[in-house]
Amino acid sequence: MTDSPTLEEVARLAGVSRATASRAINGGARVSARAQRAVEDAIRRLGYTPNTAARSLVTRRTDSVALVVPEPDELVFSDPFFARTLHVVTNVLSARDLQVVLLIARPDDDKQRMLRYLRGRHIDGAIVVSHHAGDALPDHIAALGLPNAFIGRPWTKEDQVSYVSTDNTDGARQATQLLIDRGCRRIGTIAGPADMTVGRDRLEGWRQTVNEAGLSDEAVVRGDFTEAGGAEACEALLDAHPDLDGLVVASDLMASGSLRVLAARGRRVPDDIAVTGYDDLGIAEHTNPPLTTLRNPISEMADQAAQLLIEQLEGDSVPPRRVNFAPTLIRRQSA
Amino acid sequence: MTDSPTLEEVARLAGVSRATASRAINGGARVSARAQRAVEDAIRRLGYTPNTAARSLVTRRTDSVALVVPEPDELVFSDPFFARTLHVVTNVLSARDLQVVLLIARPDDDKQRMLRYLRGRHIDGAIVVSHHAGDALPDHIAALGLPNAFIGRPWTKEDQVSYVSTDNTDGARQATQLLIDRGCRRIGTIAGPADMTVGRDRLEGWRQTVNEAGLSDEAVVRGDFTEAGGAEACEALLDAHPDLDGLVVASDLMASGSLRVLAARGRRVPDDIAVTGYDDLGIAEHTNPPLTTLRNPISEMADQAAQLLIEQLEGDSVPPRRVNFAPTLIRRQSA
Repeated sequence: MTDSPTLEEVARLAGVSRATASRAINGGARVSARAQRAVEDAIRRLGYTPNTAARSLVTRRTDSVALVVPEPDELVFSDPFFARTLHVVTNVLSARDLQVVLLIARPDDDKQRMLRYLRGRHIDGAIVVSHHAGDALPDHIAALGLPNAFIGRPWTKEDQVSYVSTDNTDGARQATQLLIDRGCRRIGTIAGPADMTVGRDRLEGWRQTVNEAGLSDEAVVRGDFTEAGGAEACEALLDAHPDLDGLVVASDLMASGSLRVLAARGRRVPDDIAVTGYDDLGIAEHTNPPLTTLRNPISEMADQAAQLLIEQLEGDSVPPRRVNFAPTLIRRQSA
Repeated sequence: MTDSPTLEEVARLAGVSRATASRAINGGARVSARAQRAVEDAIRRLGYTPNTAARSLVTRRTDSVALVVPEPDELVFSDPFFARTLHVVTNVLSARDLQVVLLIARPDDDKQRMLRYLRGRHIDGAIVVSHHAGDALPDHIAALGLPNAFIGRPWTKEDQVSYVSTDNTDGARQATQLLIDRGCRRIGTIAGPADMTVGRDRLEGWRQTVNEAGLSDEAVVRGDFTEAGGAEACEALLDAHPDLDGLVVASDLMASGSLRVLAARGRRVPDDIAVTGYDDLGIAEHTNPPLTTLRNPISEMADQAAQLLIEQLEGDSVPPRRVNFAPTLIRRQSA
């Protein structure tokens, strides 16, 4: 864990022995002109400083932090949620000279591999996004005593890890209430995965609101937060409930897929059926029609998560903290 | 660097002392029912096995490999080249139980941060994609003696690192020759960045081919491999050379931006101006008109790079190797 290039590295790059490299650095006696040039070139390229002797060999700090995403890499690269999160986290942490390493764990992966990496302390702390009920990451991270911040409320160990979240139940309530206020009476929902708090909470907000209004809560289909999954869920929902006049969708990507299905079936949005999305990360304004949606404060959450982690890295013993952000309704044309 | 959960971790997760956890595991004498349950729960969640005593504390293996991308994260998330590369590399390496960590280094980052991480040996080896002339990564990796594989020919230290590449000069030659064969006589190019071998080689293939045909090689503008950069380059090129009848673009993303500029200017493709792209990673078939392009064998290159790295990790001393793949012309409607 040395911080600077070593004499051995200079020698290897120059293609000379350590002794030759040392002589070249210390005055060049008994060194061929060619070797001297090679060593000088290597020194310049590596940024070697002969007198950077004091190297911390005992510190356990790695000055790097993991961003852990337990999702398929296809989803990580297609959902702007992850790009935005990585961008903001990297902004905050690199300003503290911390290297961000991205760990993507597919659902079918052997989870032990990632845990082994975290346990090996190759990183000083971890920010975890998009975790699912079964992955036990909060348990392991709490057990390791690893500095951490979760983005989104964890499924377990809420009291033992730090997290930032947004009130997804309230966001879905706002979307559903908007549809009720505009006169919708048969309101379905395309929910997120059942094993994520974000999926569960948005469904709950819809259910509470239709129940309070005395409307049916039977029109529910789950999607996987992808555009194709949203289209598929919308087909199934319309087949089972052809008379829906309102649709609360748990993400803009899934709502985008739903709008295409509705257009193909000749259902006018919002006149025949009003639709809301969730996230507002650059997709909602480009759909046809543009989506009324809830703004998910990803940038603020990612920034706050990075700050929570820095507090733990810099403090001696910081108790777990949680920070909550409010969603904001963004009105466009779909509802 | 232990591979299995420790007794300390079980105790911490259970919220009991190490002694209590030990007693609970060894029969439960003097342990409250609540503590016993908590310890058993922690054991189950962590997958703790009491007799996994033999832990490798001396090995320096981390069983993890870095995928290093010295590019802005916006580009990494928008260009399908990177998603495909990560997907294939992860497929191959995870089959060997190696954890992939993604390191994204922005151009304005302090390069020392990533080098410090690599030098700290938090990973066993590195696969590097999309490196630029100035970043000195090949030098450092060669100097560290770190097992490695570059995707794309490195700018320096070609003889000291392993790499897989494709003949980009030949690909651009094929594209340019196709335009000449269909009668184009004023052929411009939108080239890639000058500090990448892929940018230099594709430009060189175009230049050689127009020169050999006795045509002008003056219509050159460089882009940054993004769609917006391609549109901007196309505007500049058409302003300076309004009579072009052929355009060789160094990537499909840049070609996609160019097609939109050409449409806005009322230039019909391919009748007024024939256009070729490069990459064929899912964009080319969706442009209007669909792009004639060169297939960049990314999946094959990424697979081979992972294989080269595994050879080095498993062998005692493997000399640097290089593997070259041929590009394939894909005919669609743009030329």
